[in-house]
Amino acid sequence: MASHRRLRLGMVGGGEGAFIGAVHRIAARLDDEYELVAGALSSDPDRATRSAVGLHITPERAYTDFRTMAQAEAARPDGIDVVAIVTPNHIHYPAARAFLEAGIDVICDKPVTHDLAEAEDLARIIATSNRSFVLTHNYTGYPMVRQAREMVAAGEIGGIRVVAVEYAQDWLSTDLEATGQKQAAWRTDPARSGAGGALGDIGTHAFNIAEFVTGLSTTSVAAELTSFVHGRALDDNAQMLLRFPGGARGTLWCSQVAAGNENALRLRVYGETGGLSWQQEHPNQLIHTPLGAPPRLLSRGGPATGDAATLATRIPAGHPEGYLEGFAQLYRDAASLLRARCAGEIPPAACALLPGIAEGLRGMKFITAAVASSARDGAWTEI
Amino acid sequence: MASHRRLRLGMVGGGEGAFIGAVHRIAARLDDEYELVAGALSSDPDRATRSAVGLHITPERAYTDFRTMAQAEAARPDGIDVVAIVTPNHIHYPAARAFLEAGIDVICDKPVTHDLAEAEDLARIIATSNRSFVLTHNYTGYPMVRQAREMVAAGEIGGIRVVAVEYAQDWLSTDLEATGQKQAAWRTDPARSGAGGALGDIGTHAFNIAEFVTGLSTTSVAAELTSFVHGRALDDNAQMLLRFPGGARGTLWCSQVAAGNENALRLRVYGETGGLSWQQEHPNQLIHTPLGAPPRLLSRGGPATGDAATLATRIPAGHPEGYLEGFAQLYRDAASLLRARCAGEIPPAACALLPGIAEGLRGMKFITAAVASSARDGAWTEI
Amino acid sequence: MASHRRLRLGMVGGGEGAFIGAVHRIAARLDDEYELVAGALSSDPDRATRSAVGLHITPERAYTDFRTMAQAEAARPDGIDVVAIVTPNHIHYPAARAFLEAGIDVICDKPVTHDLAEAEDLARIIATSNRSFVLTHNYTGYPMVRQAREMVAAGEIGGIRVVAVEYAQDWLSTDLEATGQKQAAWRTDPARSGAGGALGDIGTHAFNIAEFVTGLSTTSVAAELTSFVHGRALDDNAQMLLRFPGGARGTLWCSQVAAGNENALRLRVYGETGGLSWQQEHPNQLIHTPLGAPPRLLSRGGPATGDAATLATRIPAGHPEGYLEGFAQLYRDAASLLRARCAGEIPPAACALLPGIAEGLRGMKFITAAVASSARDGAWTEI
Amino acid sequence: MASHRRLRLGMVGGGEGAFIGAVHRIAARLDDEYELVAGALSSDPDRATRSAVGLHITPERAYTDFRTMAQAEAARPDGIDVVAIVTPNHIHYPAARAFLEAGIDVICDKPVTHDLAEAEDLARIIATSNRSFVLTHNYTGYPMVRQAREMVAAGEIGGIRVVAVEYAQDWLSTDLEATGQKQAAWRTDPARSGAGGALGDIGTHAFNIAEFVTGLSTTSVAAELTSFVHGRALDDNAQMLLRFPGGARGTLWCSQVAAGNENALRLRVYGETGGLSWQQEHPNQLIHTPLGAPPRLLSRGGPATGDAATLATRIPAGHPEGYLEGFAQLYRDAASLLRARCAGEIPPAACALLPGIAEGLRGMKFITAAVASSARDGAWTEI
Repeated sequence: MASHRRLRLGMVGGGEGAFIGAVHRIAARLDDEYELVAGALSSDPDRATRSAVGLHITPERAYTDFRTMAQAEAARPDGIDVVAIVTPNHIHYPAARAFLEAGIDVICDKPVTHDLAEAEDLARIIATSNRSFVLTHNYTGYPMVRQAREMVAAGEIGGIRVVAVEYAQDWLSTDLEATGQKQAAWRTDPARSGAGGALGDIGTHAFNIAEFVTGLSTTSVAAELTSFVHGRALDDNAQMLLRFPGGARGTLWCSQVAAGNENALRLRVYGETGGLSWQQEHPNQLIHTPLGAPPRLLSRGGPATGDAATLATRIPAGHPEGYLEGFAQLYRDAASLLRARCAGEIPPAACALLPGIAEGLRGMKFITAAVASSARDGAWTEI
Repeated sequence: MASHRRLRLGMVGGGEGAFIGAVHRIAARLDDEYELVAGALSSDPDRATRSAVGLHITPERAYTDFRTMAQAEAARPDGIDVVAIVTPNHIHYPAARAFLEAGIDVICDKPVTHDLAEAEDLARIIATSNRSFVLTHNYTGYPMVRQAREMVAAGEIGGIRVVAVEYAQDWLSTDLEATGQKQAAWRTDPARSGAGGALGDIGTHAFNIAEFVTGLSTTSVAAELTSFVHGRALDDNAQMLLRFPGGARGTLWCSQVAAGNENALRLRVYGETGGLSWQQEHPNQLIHTPLGAPPRLLSRGGPATGDAATLATRIPAGHPEGYLEGFAQLYRDAASLLRARCAGEIPPAACALLPGIAEGLRGMKFITAAVASSARDGAWTEI
Repeated sequence: MASHRRLRLGMVGGGEGAFIGAVHRIAARLDDEYELVAGALSSDPDRATRSAVGLHITPERAYTDFRTMAQAEAARPDGIDVVAIVTPNHIHYPAARAFLEAGIDVICDKPVTHDLAEAEDLARIIATSNRSFVLTHNYTGYPMVRQAREMVAAGEIGGIRVVAVEYAQDWLSTDLEATGQKQAAWRTDPARSGAGGALGDIGTHAFNIAEFVTGLSTTSVAAELTSFVHGRALDDNAQMLLRFPGGARGTLWCSQVAAGNENALRLRVYGETGGLSWQQEHPNQLIHTPLGAPPRLLSRGGPATGDAATLATRIPAGHPEGYLEGFAQLYRDAASLLRARCAGEIPPAACALLPGIAEGLRGMKFITAAVASSARDGAWTEI
Repeated sequence: MASHRRLRLGMVGGGEGAFIGAVHRIAARLDDEYELVAGALSSDPDRATRSAVGLHITPERAYTDFRTMAQAEAARPDGIDVVAIVTPNHIHYPAARAFLEAGIDVICDKPVTHDLAEAEDLARIIATSNRSFVLTHNYTGYPMVRQAREMVAAGEIGGIRVVAVEYAQDWLSTDLEATGQKQAAWRTDPARSGAGGALGDIGTHAFNIAEFVTGLSTTSVAAELTSFVHGRALDDNAQMLLRFPGGARGTLWCSQVAAGNENALRLRVYGETGGLSWQQEHPNQLIHTPLGAPPRLLSRGGPATGDAATLATRIPAGHPEGYLEGFAQLYRDAASLLRARCAGEIPPAACALLPGIAEGLRGMKFITAAVASSARDGAWTEI
């Protein structure tokens, strides 16, 4: 592809009434690296068409079936370069498979698949496909999360001892799924969500960010999953202990019934010589607590931030970059990756931070282990 | 124009090395309402061409002179609908005038012009032009700023008594302009900035947001302007007292030499029965302090937010919308305005919140009065 | 005793070089309810005498042995009404026993004893002694902690679902005990501290405040105790899951190796209809998050605080009450209790909030269960 | 006096229904340096007697008239060493004069007198009295305020450029004095308060702390005083600009009608190379913002605090010291001063920080200048 043309993007899911699809589209536009030209936005033909028109997609590229779309786009000279899959979890696997087999790169929402078996199968497909697979663990796109990772890797807090990660929400405090609310309905349905409720929806984010920042792979968990809302089939609250290589210990709490929490993802990491604390609701700050010295408040774009954060920064310090920009960072990095690959060049270093199938697999293993631990009364279970 | 095609956008200024031009472009893309198709990005031909190529602008629409651009685009059947002027302040007036006289709508960065005389002349031109003029006082695009305005208007804090607004930065704490830094150079140069330094650059934002939220027009100021960095021709710190109609009183402080402040715009308003507090660096929260009851922490997308905030909200509570989204809100509203006008329809209510020439005039009058007051040893001076 | 004379207070421990003894003395003075008249401040005679002189204690009432002191004071017509025991943990039991058997009331630092067997024995002694025993779980003396308890009891957040309590410090991040530092030495020595390190020193506070506020008795724990500093015999970090009656779930984390944490005791409680959040380092605020409404920031002395908080408040809102006042509250309540008992009156309601042997027993059972759970690889263990 | 006996303290004012008297007494007890033995607690004999009994003052030393008390105590061999004057402002001068002339040291609440003439006269009396006069500008007793002063003096933020001090409350937002509330009644009455309302009650604190930390004497003000509550004779809101020697500039805002503010005293100071920020409602923290480096969060008792803060610290970091301790610090320093003077020794360095008549005079000059400036439409007025 010409190095300067925009990438042609397709989308599966994200039609009227959806949430995360619109976020993906804004993120894709933010850095002007993509143009949305095709979509299987809904399996309902009317809705698919209406959604496509609203998005400037021409009628012949508005599909109702992702398999047809994969075939047709692969056959066009101006076919899509990459597809974004933004459906409920159970569609991730078949859709990703269809596009990868058609030779089309994939950007996929998390968690990667409905269950671990699918994820492992997908990993095999990707390994032989010569295609890229990007998973939108968007919180790792925040500059200060990357700053934290860089500081840990540089030894600025010493060997890790304690990790405390949590992700609390309250929107499922009541039986919202009974009202027919679409987002609640599929997230609380094992057939569409998989084995994890809050665990899959937000716990995987917490787990991913903890591993991303520390650079450690969790070895085992001792978990307690609970469904507080009567009749709910999946967990809406999960609390667990974590063990990491080298002796580090941790806790992970995710909840969708913690009244007053909107999207309270928070990570704290303590090492032998210092600590780091970050919270998603105020993402432009990172607190560094060197042992024996006053805490330092690092800010995005401010003094003492390193390369990783700077590369993910668009605007000066004090102008808060938010969630959309974090999301957009993945799209930007993905565009760099695809362009570089196409040109036979080495991708920029930032591309190495892109979550992909490995992170997807980790997520599924995490869900699987947590569910198993909880089922075994919290016995420690390897990941 | 067809109601669903994107608006064709041109840009004056914003070539390589510029800051705010890139912010405007991201903001324009965020809601997919514009496509950038023409530009006079730089008066240097090489730089103009290089900048245009990088932005997918075709060579024949990459101009080096805004007057030529205005004529040429007005003559094309596919000419731009609207131009964004993102140059240093002294270009605002001639460029805006050129496009308005060519029948093209204008989105212009603030402060509106170099001096009050230009602003008054521009107001006359606009009044007779049948064109729209939008001024990017972007902080009024934040949902919680609109929420605050709505609450004041609804009488939720009673009659206004006290206003405290401040905008503190530290990037001009040293003689940065002497290093040749482009942003510092023009902002500290009266020929390009006008009579206000920090006053024009950020004081106008503070002034605008105070009037936006309170709905009050400041009647007079008693000001003290200071240049702390040796040899600087314009103020880098301004402190003043404000008087409002109905007896309300206020303070305004803007500074670019307040060490440790990145972009600390903060507004507090106190009325007979309550108060409101908002700060730009954490823009998704608004603190409401009803007299005699516990403070309430309102959040964007959260419980108890009203229509104005909801209309400016893209994503759920807890996912911080940031500066870019605030900026993008103005572009979205402007697109709605232009489309409605074209279709002969009544614009949506949110368009009434768009800053335009009136706000621009207010800003110039504010600078003029503050400079005059300070020159008269802080005597109260009417605005 | 005359209703208006000050209570005569003795002290065991708290001589030169001690920390908590001085805190107890300030707390006792704060409300002018006690006068310190006797002490066994140190087992070293010289230090005991020097310490006594500095505290205005007359020489004949400066003892070097708590048993002698108990006998002598019981025999004096102006003998002490009550003794404060502020020694390392292993002295708590014999000293408390000596004074109780001499007919003297006891105020004792926490944890109640060295081990569970001692605590149970002490409980038996108290039960037959007709004396009062007050345990200084001082954090329950904070007005806003009592406010939280009152709100939970009144059903303001509905049935409890999730509890998250943590108490993080960093002062044992290095091998401080090897330097001979007195506070570190005894706290890391099983012979003087008991089976819990961080667990006994601060974990018991976290455990106590969680039960105090929720009104729930933890039923079992699944724990992971770690000693991060090489060669340390006791835990310096403990993380555990908690189960409560009625299905509530919780996490407890205590650490003395979390760099950057000074005394970060923090409690969050979530119920069916709301949540509460409090942190000791800013103790005058309590955040109430009613489900579906904006968070309310309650402050000590401010609007909407109830009787329990008001009774523990000395000064108006906005003037921060601190740690010493929280501590003093227990002394004030203890004085009320002792005076009422002496006068044959019913003690004021606030006395019911005083921690005593029951809370001490709970603490020892907690340590015992946590140590056992961790030893059994985190198996759930009843408390 | 014997170096180890407690100082004998008397009190004028502070009987039943008073606020600040109880605060003074707790502060005096906190460090066990004083015993309260005499008082003219009320001019009403019954109230005076009842108040004295409750405070363990013997009947013959419970006076109803401060002049009688001064004479009688001066004549006793065990007479008071020092008196605390805690009455409404208009009594400060005659009471202080009576005790100083009787040879008794004075600790006096602020503002120092009813008007500037009295303050100047008092200054003359003190100058010839050979007695100490301590003014309880209690906020200067906070460890982190002293830390800030020490850092400024050490040049850690360079030459001062900008000062922003504010003190906001809301308790006079309505016509509280009309309800007969005692605290409101005298504070809004020119006969008892003097020329300043909010200005005298809290503005003097803001003014004092700004001068204390910066070490600069304000040279002139341009002020705007307002009475927002109908019929109120004194200001309930004051906003002003400040000029300091060396070219520094500042703003001062004090208000008792700012809804939602309890006791929001806040100071920010910016110099050539850094800034400092402190707020009274969270007094144990001080933010230091070195130019070009991340902000540092200094905490009382924590790393990097200096001698001045350490000397005023009682308990370890993380255990919040509050308002009472700040107050008590002045009493502790005053005790050191009195003991040293009595022993013919040089007082400890910390005594140099004690506010006295000089600070009292400054306060009265400040009120006088602010009132004059406001009366002259905000003209700059020398202090």
